[in-house]
Amino acid sequence: MQILTNHTPASTPIPGIDHVTVAGSGTGLRHLSVWKQSMAPGNATPPHRHTCEEVVLCIRGIGELHAEGRIERFIAGQTIVIPASVDHQLISVGPEPLETIAAFSMTPVLTTSPQGEVLALPWES
Amino acid sequence: MQILTNHTPASTPIPGIDHVTVAGSGTGLRHLSVWKQSMAPGNATPPHRHTCEEVVLCIRGIGELHAEGRIERFIAGQTIVIPASVDHQLISVGPEPLETIAAFSMTPVLTTSPQGEVLALPWES
Repeated sequence: MQILTNHTPASTPIPGIDHVTVAGSGTGLRHLSVWKQSMAPGNATPPHRHTCEEVVLCIRGIGELHAEGRIERFIAGQTIVIPASVDHQLISVGPEPLETIAAFSMTPVLTTSPQGEVLALPWES
Repeated sequence: MQILTNHTPASTPIPGIDHVTVAGSGTGLRHLSVWKQSMAPGNATPPHRHTCEEVVLCIRGIGELHAEGRIERFIAGQTIVIPASVDHQLISVGPEPLETIAAFSMTPVLTTSPQGEVLALPWES
């Protein structure tokens, strides 16, 4: 049992994406990761998929979800449920940063391109 | 892929605890649940354990964690990491409601008493 204090996303090698892994394999978990991210306006994740389930809570800002051939907008207070192995991309489309909390059903989180190539994340996931 | 909008915790049969299951088996997940709760000042969960891992993000308020023979205080911005099968109890000890987001590595979330008796949760977990 641990009480953790470090939860401020910090800049990463991915342009416009600040990240902190709140909890995961680095804090002793085996089946669960929780991330916080902030994405500057106009920035985006690459298209990608995970081999696990993901729930993304939008805390602030406006985002676009590109997945399954559709584009859907989401705002603070909404949540995205992403089944395992579904390609998706998130884009920060509002005037303020897009802030999210994401939970994953595995740790570390395996992330691949839509072509199945493993994407090396620049953080302990 | 779903974008969900209903995230306001509502009153439950457990005194002082408002709850909403943000995502879980009811939204098609198999290995992940996310809850939001608000606990009125002076209220508490019963002592309990889950058969899965749990991460609790404190969004607002002040809480006490009773676990492993210790009492620790936590505040908004802090996070609790709870391994599987560890007994714990959360108490809202501040002047305002204790608001939390919790992620679990299973769905539905199996909850038992410290004696191992299954606790029937009054919500779809």
